[in-house]
Amino acid sequence: MPEKKHPDASPHQIDEAMESAWSCFPPFRKQPGKARAMFLRDIARRLEENKDQLVLLADTETSLGHIRLQLELKRTISELELFADLAKSEKWKERKKEPSEPNRKPIPKPAMQTTNLPLGPVVVIGACNFPFAISVVGTDTASALAVGCPVVVKAHPEHARTCQFLADLVEQSLKETGMPAKAFQLIHGKEHSITRALVEHPRTACVAFTGSLEGGKALNKLACQRTSPIPFHAEMGSLNPVFVLPHALEDNGEDLAKAFVAAVNLFSGQMCTKPGLLLLIEGPGVEPFLGWTRDAVSKTKNSRMLNQTVFKNFNSITRDLASSLNLVAGKKNDPNENERSAFCQIFETKGRDFLKSFNLRTEAFGPASIIVRCQDQDEFIEIARSMEGSLTGTIHAQPEDNKLATRLLPLIESRVGRLLWDGFPPGVVPGIATHHGGPWPATTDSRHTSIGLFGYRRFVRPVCRQGFPSSGLAQAT
Amino acid sequence: MPEKKHPDASPHQIDEAMESAWSCFPPFRKQPGKARAMFLRDIARRLEENKDQLVLLADTETSLGHIRLQLELKRTISELELFADLAKSEKWKERKKEPSEPNRKPIPKPAMQTTNLPLGPVVVIGACNFPFAISVVGTDTASALAVGCPVVVKAHPEHARTCQFLADLVEQSLKETGMPAKAFQLIHGKEHSITRALVEHPRTACVAFTGSLEGGKALNKLACQRTSPIPFHAEMGSLNPVFVLPHALEDNGEDLAKAFVAAVNLFSGQMCTKPGLLLLIEGPGVEPFLGWTRDAVSKTKNSRMLNQTVFKNFNSITRDLASSLNLVAGKKNDPNENERSAFCQIFETKGRDFLKSFNLRTEAFGPASIIVRCQDQDEFIEIARSMEGSLTGTIHAQPEDNKLATRLLPLIESRVGRLLWDGFPPGVVPGIATHHGGPWPATTDSRHTSIGLFGYRRFVRPVCRQGFPSSGLAQAT
Repeated sequence: MPEKKHPDASPHQIDEAMESAWSCFPPFRKQPGKARAMFLRDIARRLEENKDQLVLLADTETSLGHIRLQLELKRTISELELFADLAKSEKWKERKKEPSEPNRKPIPKPAMQTTNLPLGPVVVIGACNFPFAISVVGTDTASALAVGCPVVVKAHPEHARTCQFLADLVEQSLKETGMPAKAFQLIHGKEHSITRALVEHPRTACVAFTGSLEGGKALNKLACQRTSPIPFHAEMGSLNPVFVLPHALEDNGEDLAKAFVAAVNLFSGQMCTKPGLLLLIEGPGVEPFLGWTRDAVSKTKNSRMLNQTVFKNFNSITRDLASSLNLVAGKKNDPNENERSAFCQIFETKGRDFLKSFNLRTEAFGPASIIVRCQDQDEFIEIARSMEGSLTGTIHAQPEDNKLATRLLPLIESRVGRLLWDGFPPGVVPGIATHHGGPWPATTDSRHTSIGLFGYRRFVRPVCRQGFPSSGLAQAT
Repeated sequence: MPEKKHPDASPHQIDEAMESAWSCFPPFRKQPGKARAMFLRDIARRLEENKDQLVLLADTETSLGHIRLQLELKRTISELELFADLAKSEKWKERKKEPSEPNRKPIPKPAMQTTNLPLGPVVVIGACNFPFAISVVGTDTASALAVGCPVVVKAHPEHARTCQFLADLVEQSLKETGMPAKAFQLIHGKEHSITRALVEHPRTACVAFTGSLEGGKALNKLACQRTSPIPFHAEMGSLNPVFVLPHALEDNGEDLAKAFVAAVNLFSGQMCTKPGLLLLIEGPGVEPFLGWTRDAVSKTKNSRMLNQTVFKNFNSITRDLASSLNLVAGKKNDPNENERSAFCQIFETKGRDFLKSFNLRTEAFGPASIIVRCQDQDEFIEIARSMEGSLTGTIHAQPEDNKLATRLLPLIESRVGRLLWDGFPPGVVPGIATHHGGPWPATTDSRHTSIGLFGYRRFVRPVCRQGFPSSGLAQAT
């Protein structure tokens, strides 16, 4: 056990952090958009300058590997720039105007101008699997800062040193660009009580969380049971079903098998959008597909998982799956080995068994997936109809599959936040059209996204100014 | 007691209503925008055709008077037209596109198109005080129908016959315009268990509620504790403080007193935006203002309240206020008289007493308000800082008040959904810039509005389509 570098914050420290976030809310939101843009760009610059050290440190704590971490850091930098542009343009204010109509009948209409305001201090609770992009300075933090919300980040205990390094860089940027000192703060904590205290603190205006379903559900209830309930946004992962239609399976089976296994095994399957299910219909394409899947799995290397907790959970859930399902490719992990080295494991089950068992619908966080063999199109559709919400859903179809795809598409679309035509879901590109959210239990509020430009909508509310004169004091504030 | 015309729905009927709303969701959302627009316009036409009968019936049930009810019906018709335009334009889909960048480094970017989809069946629970505009066919229902959500309205038991009349008209429009028969349904119920069952039903995707803080809080918790939590939007009324600055008080005292009393007494004070507090600072303007207030109150007529429950609650809360405050204008009601006739009552208190007492911060639904006399500017500001969320806040200031107004404005703005410069808050004009919402406890989610064009945002969520070909099947669905 390495030395515990970052002790848990005390209740007093949490209180102090939230109170000082609250105190600096007025001066921080008053900063011109250009100034907050400079602050975000300064963070981006420091990330770029320190990229080698950051990647080294994050790899020590997460074992995600240099290539992945370099890509992730690059994405994080581009997100900071996206939100710097937003802060500068002030488009997040979404101004709306209606002129007065003093002679309107039956009653005159006053002039109205509506603009978004920041909600207040935002608490960010990042994920274990993205030490840069869903951590101290990802979409959550960058979008909240862009609109003028002070941010208190809860460091992930499994990569606390990376979090502290990032936080140090942000604090340098705060100073360098003259922002209020407490517009950004980091809180350390292994104990759940620390996260709970942050969610329950009266100064917390909104929470952005990425993590487990269990954790998200518990915190969502807390947020709702406060004296003053607050919006709680959790992204809790999902099954991300992939529906392969018969002609696509027959025509592209080999490529699909390779891409499927690559998607399941990507970064040891530790992705919110890892395909946890692949559904197909019994027919001539199935056995060859299973064969190619076995081939592909046999070529994968076992990879080191994020940390001991993740490794333990993965072993436990795959042990459960193995007790009721056929392991069609890959092999069981050795739960006792010290390298937390995970093998890719693909299970199979029949459609009718899948329909009966709710245990098979729990996300296995790691390189495992289930192939569901449906006896016919009706069972395929029935399963689509029985699915809970997911971040993503995918359809692989050829033109000859059109009739079935037409039945399937609206069913899947009504249960996901992102619908893929071909391709596999891992990987999110942050931009204007990005939507990383989905119906419960993928997120607590499917109307919002935790990645991409519109992530800021979680942190603003409209205020309508009525009857304000067009000049003078009222315009100055 | 008149004959009970509309018995409470049975659990079976509630279940049937929600299941049939769910079943007709796919065909209803597939209707072209133009068709849903025709449906909404057909309802508007029927309301117009039946306006005299509707007003007569609603007046029997609410005692709001013909003039007010005619205005309210007119507003309701204009809201139906607003949302018919929205349905036709399909602007609610808020389409966003990003082209693919196959050569992008380090990884190619897929094409993404994001569009809003309707959430599913919406339950609408209307208010006692707006039998047309916040009832069967107001913003809640019209905006949900515009975007393709089937609606189940819970009839208000105090104006159940008006609700049924309106629902009959909507059902005629459903038939006339060929909409799925269960895209709109009405459920009757006096018992709270019926509302709870609607909020808890697994087919309910979202709830829009207008009513009491107590009711809204209880239902909000239920919505969050479901197996699948759903968004619950409650508009629960508020104190709507009015801040009168010294020079405004001295210069315009008489007009302000008249307008204040008119706003307090409007429709017997049964408005979510009735000013429940008027704050001023001791000085030469105060005594004359109180005198004009007394004059104005003495000229008001007592008016019949909505129903026995509202009358009883109003008597109870004004009795409480009278026990600790000075009744500066108006007189106590006779709680035993049968006409539920309410007198306008204006109380006064000192700023320091107001700061100590949380009882004074409960909305008194009816023609009562409290004048808070602050000893100086600091106390005035301290009270502004101590306010909870409200739907509205108002500032009356003259140029000489600028310094104080500058301190005050951001404090009030951070606590309200609508900020008025001069004027008084009752009356909402539905449009693009309308925001009828506010921080807790005014609403459960200050980021949304229950009146005005953007009311539809409660009922839609974005879905991103990734990698879809530009033609063929994928575009057809």
